[in-house]
Amino acid sequence: MTGIDPDRFRDTFETYSDIGRTDNDGLHRLTLSEADIRVREQLVGDLESVGVDVRIDEIGNIFGRREGTDPDAAPVLIGSHLDSQPYGGRFDGQLGVLCALETLRAFDEHDVEHRRPIELVNWTNEEGSRFKPALMGSGTFVGEFSVEETLARTDADGTTVKEALESAGYRGDAECGPREPIHSYLELHVEQGPILEEHGQSVAVVDGIYGMSWLEATIEGTSDHAGPSPMHSRRDALVAATDVVQGIRRLSNRYDDVVTTVGELTVEPGSINVIPSEVTFTADVRSYDDAIVAELAERVESELEAACAREGTEYELEELWRIEHTEFAKSVRTAACEAAEESGVSYRSMVGGAGHDANYLTEVTDAGMLFVPSVDGRTHNEDEFTEWEDVVAGANTFAETTRRLSQ
Amino acid sequence: MTGIDPDRFRDTFETYSDIGRTDNDGLHRLTLSEADIRVREQLVGDLESVGVDVRIDEIGNIFGRREGTDPDAAPVLIGSHLDSQPYGGRFDGQLGVLCALETLRAFDEHDVEHRRPIELVNWTNEEGSRFKPALMGSGTFVGEFSVEETLARTDADGTTVKEALESAGYRGDAECGPREPIHSYLELHVEQGPILEEHGQSVAVVDGIYGMSWLEATIEGTSDHAGPSPMHSRRDALVAATDVVQGIRRLSNRYDDVVTTVGELTVEPGSINVIPSEVTFTADVRSYDDAIVAELAERVESELEAACAREGTEYELEELWRIEHTEFAKSVRTAACEAAEESGVSYRSMVGGAGHDANYLTEVTDAGMLFVPSVDGRTHNEDEFTEWEDVVAGANTFAETTRRLSQ
Ligand SMILES: NC(=O)NCCC(=O)O
Ligand SMILES: NC(=O)NCCC(=O)O
Repeated sequence: MTGIDPDRFRDTFETYSDIGRTDNDGLHRLTLSEADIRVREQLVGDLESVGVDVRIDEIGNIFGRREGTDPDAAPVLIGSHLDSQPYGGRFDGQLGVLCALETLRAFDEHDVEHRRPIELVNWTNEEGSRFKPALMGSGTFVGEFSVEETLARTDADGTTVKEALESAGYRGDAECGPREPIHSYLELHVEQGPILEEHGQSVAVVDGIYGMSWLEATIEGTSDHAGPSPMHSRRDALVAATDVVQGIRRLSNRYDDVVTTVGELTVEPGSINVIPSEVTFTADVRSYDDAIVAELAERVESELEAACAREGTEYELEELWRIEHTEFAKSVRTAACEAAEESGVSYRSMVGGAGHDANYLTEVTDAGMLFVPSVDGRTHNEDEFTEWEDVVAGANTFAETTRRLSQ
Repeated sequence: MTGIDPDRFRDTFETYSDIGRTDNDGLHRLTLSEADIRVREQLVGDLESVGVDVRIDEIGNIFGRREGTDPDAAPVLIGSHLDSQPYGGRFDGQLGVLCALETLRAFDEHDVEHRRPIELVNWTNEEGSRFKPALMGSGTFVGEFSVEETLARTDADGTTVKEALESAGYRGDAECGPREPIHSYLELHVEQGPILEEHGQSVAVVDGIYGMSWLEATIEGTSDHAGPSPMHSRRDALVAATDVVQGIRRLSNRYDDVVTTVGELTVEPGSINVIPSEVTFTADVRSYDDAIVAELAERVESELEAACAREGTEYELEELWRIEHTEFAKSVRTAACEAAEESGVSYRSMVGGAGHDANYLTEVTDAGMLFVPSVDGRTHNEDEFTEWEDVVAGANTFAETTRRLSQ
């Protein structure tokens, strides 16, 4: 019995959802925006009121530590992220942090005994919407990115992470990185796909996560007048770019576990009667097989080459981010399966298609994840939804897994 | 002898080119922007100093009238536009206004006698970049658009033409429209295409102008996560839109005199790992044959229908503007050919691919145009260029045509 209080949990969820809530009941809480600052203040206050020790590191990751009975034991880390996509949903990220908070509250209320310290964590900039890449806070924590590199990243307006942290008051004192060996890391997240819902199950114990590559391409053509410029003499950057976008979509046809997406595309100069001179766009390609991710990145380049040869345009291609596929630790998966069974929750195991902070944590500890269903598989938009009974099933499984890991 | 002064003309051209000049020697002078306001002030001052009567109408068109010997004779209108594309060139539009100004100065200096009044005009918002549609000032003058309709048009920020005119101080007192019968209209413009340069000629007497349609399409899909969303369940607005852009490019393959362009395209929400939910883009389709323009507009819709059926998306299509092909008046063409011959200028006749204020003027008077060459046919960008000797040949032909028309 871990003592989750569904009513308290729901109240907390609504309080947090009000911070950055959109007109359509979604969440617009980009990293270190005004809404993200407010939700961080809410979390710090809530952590202090449950009597845990709060620590903020130099890139704004927030930790709250509840001591266990053995002061020398390696801690269990639990948490997720409070930042959101632009016009994203209320469950992505936030639900994982709030399950961790409710776990601390329940353990406090019911004096649940645990040997290891339990640390809640909120990672900075998981989404990668304001600052690229995603998983920035956890990636820096495990040493995948250096602190200097992370602080120097800029948003679309040229503001650096360092400037944003300082003006928000979240450039903490603590060094970014593990201070001691970590026993394990547990994160709950919405599935963001259709599988749990299709199978009518409440919880997934996640086996691993797809690898992925994020690419950015720029095509340079020649701007000219849409009227008197003969078709045969044009070098239209948008004609070349749209050719590539079609090619990227077709890439997935040749594989059974691949997804490919172009999410951003901008056109210069962007006037109705001017042939576009420059188009910049992104590609996001994923597979559970790292060799296929590498192959997809190469095929994006082949598409660019072919389209630019046809249109007489030039291109540049940059890989913004690559992350290998992740396999989660058997120890955490086993604890999670036992917890689900003990909680009487219907569950399955599965592989996830989205990157999570847990991916990077596997580099320093035994990491694992739980998913709860996403209605219609929808996420990264305001319609994101999870039935409350599934949320509660997930929270119970989460608290019980935490209890088991912290013995 | 019309007395054009090439040195004075060149100085004037440089003075005007400094107003809104870009770092790369282009022009960024959107309608009623700060730069457009300054250039209007320059023109009004220059008109006053040549002793003509200045009049500004209710949508900001600027007129300067030099009386002829017969006060009852219908006037000859000469001019073009001073607004530019974003990062456009220094010749498009401006050169026509400055040829008209130099003509007034030369006639004043040399007491060139003319029976008819000559009126210089600078039309508001020819380009259609800040406010759609293009040819707004001349279109309203001839009654193609009502004054109310024009004043209510908005830019991308929602500012109306009325607000922009009032804050600029260019909402004039004069009623917009002809006050009296107009004898003829003459406009000089850069060709914006490659034909004069290819033939090594300095001037074109323009027979007519292509018809065109401006369309705006919006495709609605469903935003979702780029990772866990299976390819087969996606409704990706950008996949559908890029399919249509490719189709619009291919449309021109089936005709020998057609041009098709997509100049603007925006993606929502525009995040690297989010499937696009909404894409808006424009299409600009042109032909000298009005029936073909109508056919092209229908084919754009067919492309949308097919692409949206494939991707499961929805679309809306709006025609923003349609203008039929124009044939210029024989009287003006004849005067222009005679003037070119008298000036010893090598010239040809041709059809133009870009809309000009002269198109709309054909609805109220005998209208005609002169072109001077565009190096490499380039225009609507900072590299736009015309050799100075061609500019002078054009200015001489222009002044002499004006003289002939005003007898
Ligand atoms: N879960 C999630 O949305 N993470 C962001 C990185 C990704 O796009 O997979
Ligand atoms: N000449 C010119 O650029 N006019 C604007 C309307 C058009 O695109 O043809």
